Amino acid sequence: MKLSCLQENLKRGLAVVSHAVAGKSTLPVLSNILIASDDGRLKLAATNLEIGITCWIGAKIEEEGAVAVPAKLLSDVVGSLPNDRIDLTLDGRTQTLNLKCARFESNIKGTESGEFPAIPTVDNRTPTAVFPPTLLRETIQQVAFAASTEETRPVLQGVQLRLRDNRAIFAAADGFRLAQRIVELPEPVAQPQDLIIPARALNELARILNDDESQVEMIVTHSGGQVLFHTSTVDLVSRLIDGKYPDVDRVIPQQYQTRAVLDTQELTKAVKLASYFTVAPSNSVRLHMEPGGDLGPGRMTISANAVDVGDNKGQVDAMIEGEGGQIALNVKFLSDAIAAIPTPQLALETQSPQHPAVFKPVGADGYIHIVMPMTVR
Amino acid sequence: MKLSCLQENLKRGLAVVSHAVAGKSTLPVLSNILIASDDGRLKLAATNLEIGITCWIGAKIEEEGAVAVPAKLLSDVVGSLPNDRIDLTLDGRTQTLNLKCARFESNIKGTESGEFPAIPTVDNRTPTAVFPPTLLRETIQQVAFAASTEETRPVLQGVQLRLRDNRAIFAAADGFRLAQRIVELPEPVAQPQDLIIPARALNELARILNDDESQVEMIVTHSGGQVLFHTSTVDLVSRLIDGKYPDVDRVIPQQYQTRAVLDTQELTKAVKLASYFTVAPSNSVRLHMEPGGDLGPGRMTISANAVDVGDNKGQVDAMIEGEGGQIALNVKFLSDAIAAIPTPQLALETQSPQHPAVFKPVGADGYIHIVMPMTVR
Repeated sequence: MKLSCLQENLKRGLAVVSHAVAGKSTLPVLSNILIASDDGRLKLAATNLEIGITCWIGAKIEEEGAVAVPAKLLSDVVGSLPNDRIDLTLDGRTQTLNLKCARFESNIKGTESGEFPAIPTVDNRTPTAVFPPTLLRETIQQVAFAASTEETRPVLQGVQLRLRDNRAIFAAADGFRLAQRIVELPEPVAQPQDLIIPARALNELARILNDDESQVEMIVTHSGGQVLFHTSTVDLVSRLIDGKYPDVDRVIPQQYQTRAVLDTQELTKAVKLASYFTVAPSNSVRLHMEPGGDLGPGRMTISANAVDVGDNKGQVDAMIEGEGGQIALNVKFLSDAIAAIPTPQLALETQSPQHPAVFKPVGADGYIHIVMPMTVR
Repeated sequence: MKLSCLQENLKRGLAVVSHAVAGKSTLPVLSNILIASDDGRLKLAATNLEIGITCWIGAKIEEEGAVAVPAKLLSDVVGSLPNDRIDLTLDGRTQTLNLKCARFESNIKGTESGEFPAIPTVDNRTPTAVFPPTLLRETIQQVAFAASTEETRPVLQGVQLRLRDNRAIFAAADGFRLAQRIVELPEPVAQPQDLIIPARALNELARILNDDESQVEMIVTHSGGQVLFHTSTVDLVSRLIDGKYPDVDRVIPQQYQTRAVLDTQELTKAVKLASYFTVAPSNSVRLHMEPGGDLGPGRMTISANAVDVGDNKGQVDAMIEGEGGQIALNVKFLSDAIAAIPTPQLALETQSPQHPAVFKPVGADGYIHIVMPMTVR
């Protein structure tokens, strides 16, 4: 292998694929990045066997070839080189990669590319669905964090994706909360389809998605076992989760007794302050809603009480529709819900202290976040 | 106690004294901050029994009083409050501190101020020496990191300060390297004096020193056991280290065979790149100096070789005086030495591969940094 490329391109490519490098693995080769000439470009690839990321960058190829080199060392070295042309040459006998850049020269010992596991590709290249990259990233950021991190119920570690005509419905839940976003697709799908995609894979996808890309093609294998997200410069492959996802629609309340509209930023601050006075394991914060009257606007009181530590109370203005009332929520789930709302105002809809709380953006459709209440003592 | 102050002032004061709060201690009260009315100001104080920091902020005192409250909780709460007036009221019966600010109210359970250890003060208020704050901070940053962190030789955990007429000589060494800075004092000292100040205490002092202060007074107790650094808003008290400091002057080479003048930033980058190819325990980097000739400038080659990993070589231009030669240095000590040089160019003076390497700023006097060499194989 003999090729040259620009330091900034190689650095960016390595940053993209590094997300898929195995942290610790029984298979040492997985801490490597595969670098290979590929049809006039330089291909970089990494996998932790759960997801695989491949990235292509512009390069001038003089001699074809491939080698696997330690990911961290290569990233450290390339990151420290000046922004200039890098010449990469592989000594096939010793599997040593030589890098020359400006007045620096490094030799990095690698492993034969054949020892690197093949990263699954998807045979059927007709996209199952197509997403605009910015919309897809925002959707993932609003939904995927609500998935479970516990191994006990594998389907809950995934994000459910339902494709219906020109709508895609992303949903994640962990038994305590549910996040759902409905997005309009630029093109309708050929047929309705339900998938469960690991939340971790989607989070990595959100991290590497580049706004410059025109679109992200999603391709599901014929067998239904794997999904590929494809742009002009990056591929991310993930296994799909097998199983039956809970009925999400059944959980979403269809009505409310009280609806409060609040300033998202003010509520964030008040909840942050209350968080210092919560106690494990419930870590609950109490929200009390009072409708306004002739004399002024309504308000929400956010309070917390940690017996041996102290207590806290804060107030924010709120437009309250309905009778008012109170509800107690876990402070982490509450903070997460608020943080997922991108609009300056949010709406909180409640029925009773025992019914789930519903958070929605004000002035933007399609997103809903539901948090189960704690028992109010 | 009943008083009010501005959130931003209280926040800044808490950030200053927090540095002295004990991380983990057998004495739980040390995780608290003492807050007390003091002669028309609000006094904040913390100590880990090794150092004590006291800070005063402007406040409107309505009722005198004092209480010790959990440092982290108080800092978290004050940090989350809006930049507005905070009213602080102590309930003496329950030792609970009430904070009111805008539409927020918190109660924090505290401990009687009497349980908080008395922070040592220095009886003799005539300063032993006076320093400009910016100069003192820069000096500490250039010297204190070279002190030892090992318990085996307590004096080496300190910084030696020699006061002679209008000169103060700060020196620190750990057996592998030595940093020394000579500063001119605005006023001569009354008598020569040698002190050993814990490096940790000086590092904290550097962190809290405010450029706005006109001067820092240093006061040593009559007994010689403690030192106080005093500004108009902050006091830092530390024990002094008892013992005999090694003879620093004996270690400083008086001559050199080769002197290289280099660009500090270029050398930093080349050493960083070489650092990825060093191997514990020596972690050595080799520096090779070649004088220039009629055809071009001299140069330094920085190289490292890690047998199972790879190797690296980089070059930077250098003005070489003398014959040239090579020396091997531990990469951490080398990086630290370069980072302590504030000037765009630095000079490296060597005698032989077995003699210590001397680093000096170019165009600024008073600082010298010496690193013992590794054996060149």
